[in-house]
Amino acid sequence: MAKSIFYHAGCPVCVSAENDILNLVNPNNVEVVHLGENKARIKEAESAGVNSVPALLTPNGNVLHINFGASLDALKN
Amino acid sequence: MAKSIFYHAGCPVCVSAENDILNLVNPNNVEVVHLGENKARIKEAESAGVNSVPALLTPNGNVLHINFGASLDALKN
Repeated sequence: MAKSIFYHAGCPVCVSAENDILNLVNPNNVEVVHLGENKARIKEAESAGVNSVPALLTPNGNVLHINFGASLDALKN
Repeated sequence: MAKSIFYHAGCPVCVSAENDILNLVNPNNVEVVHLGENKARIKEAESAGVNSVPALLTPNGNVLHINFGASLDALKN
């Protein structure tokens, strides 16, 4: 099974959502990416349709924006 | 394991998110509630902290608002 990717930026909303997602979904099937620490992957997230974090990119390419922590633009600075 | 509750209202955003969630989470652990057809449960959803659909209420009481389909207020009419 292809992995989902959980994009976050360490914000409280992100951490809370991450805990919830990793409780619900098999953690082995989720790659967790911290865009604040790994700015090189912001472009990839953006191309996938991610507008804000936290967000979960599913194996079939859909983006689930989960609550709202920060816009992707805010992470670029 | 306690069940999550997925609240939706049949909107395209809801249906798409429902498919994604049921692919990621064991469907046996998720109760799906259509608030458009089951208005009696809007109050329960509201009390749990749901502001809009689609939303997933986790077993530990957190609400994950997933993308945005409709506000709960819009479903009351």
